[in-house]
Amino acid sequence: MSKLLQDVVGELSKLPGVGRRTALRLAIHILRMEPESVGEMTRSIDRFRNDIKHCARCNNLSDEEICPVCADRERDHTTICVVEQVADVLSIENTHQYKGLYHVLGGVISPMQGIAPSDLKIDLLCDRIAQGGVKEVILAISTSVEGETTLFYLMSRLRHYPGVKITSIARGIGFGDELEYVDELTITHALLNRREVE
Amino acid sequence: MSKLLQDVVGELSKLPGVGRRTALRLAIHILRMEPESVGEMTRSIDRFRNDIKHCARCNNLSDEEICPVCADRERDHTTICVVEQVADVLSIENTHQYKGLYHVLGGVISPMQGIAPSDLKIDLLCDRIAQGGVKEVILAISTSVEGETTLFYLMSRLRHYPGVKITSIARGIGFGDELEYVDELTITHALLNRREVE
Repeated sequence: MSKLLQDVVGELSKLPGVGRRTALRLAIHILRMEPESVGEMTRSIDRFRNDIKHCARCNNLSDEEICPVCADRERDHTTICVVEQVADVLSIENTHQYKGLYHVLGGVISPMQGIAPSDLKIDLLCDRIAQGGVKEVILAISTSVEGETTLFYLMSRLRHYPGVKITSIARGIGFGDELEYVDELTITHALLNRREVE
Repeated sequence: MSKLLQDVVGELSKLPGVGRRTALRLAIHILRMEPESVGEMTRSIDRFRNDIKHCARCNNLSDEEICPVCADRERDHTTICVVEQVADVLSIENTHQYKGLYHVLGGVISPMQGIAPSDLKIDLLCDRIAQGGVKEVILAISTSVEGETTLFYLMSRLRHYPGVKITSIARGIGFGDELEYVDELTITHALLNRREVE
């Protein structure tokens, strides 16, 4: 087997969800791409890895010291939505419904994986709130055991800021989900939090 | 959304089987990799795309003018196994059972996709056989309509070389395949080509 092919397959196999077979398919595809197009791709990967920053305010990925969301005066600076990771910000932004700011924790508390509260950007969040002007903090944390632990820890910390409303995103049956396949905990939540039909 | 992130997601989305969601997951993973490790990966992709050659004899991918298989005097130079693509060579090499040479056509004849016999390395194969020394040509072409067309075309061309045995790989029920889920054509083939149990 060609050493160049072997190298590229080995390197691509390091990516998550990419086994040797997929890596080989990707390599064959790369071979069919224009060299300039491949160069653009690899340069964008290098630039991304080397030049990306974390926003000094919300910890989201950013090209600048302060991310476009935090820098946008049009957005509602009185509301902060707390999420685990960068991908969550994008999911929420894609709805085009939320006009407030974000705060990216960078994970959830997990004693099993050795992730303590101090490993997350919780102090940074408290600093932001302490500066004043924040009216509501929305906790959009996943419902895993680690997520719930993080939620409770956050609530214990955020309780110390009077005048700041703490909310959590609604749990319930997703649109398109069939009740038959939804877990009991979610159904229980959905029943308890039922709303009168208007 | 960060421009750098947007760029890398856009570029990675160009790869087959990589949608925007997967591209984002890959980007987040790249962010967690060491910068040197990312550099190694991108350099290996660039080197692969820019420096890889096709073996002048068998058309397989190669770092040199002649690939390691064709250059290997230990291998059986009297047998050539004809395959569609580079990945097929690797599949056969992985069995460690075949000691002959290869010939990579670079595709199959497909009038629908505008791939004519002249677009494949068929003349190169004939040249190799015309040089003499070849005793057997094994056709390991897929059983698709295009594959069968290619097979018949190859047989019509290879007929002109007396003393060269033309064989095709066996069709039948794969190991681990359940008869229940195997198509009729394969079962028919497997029945017609049944062997006495020794």
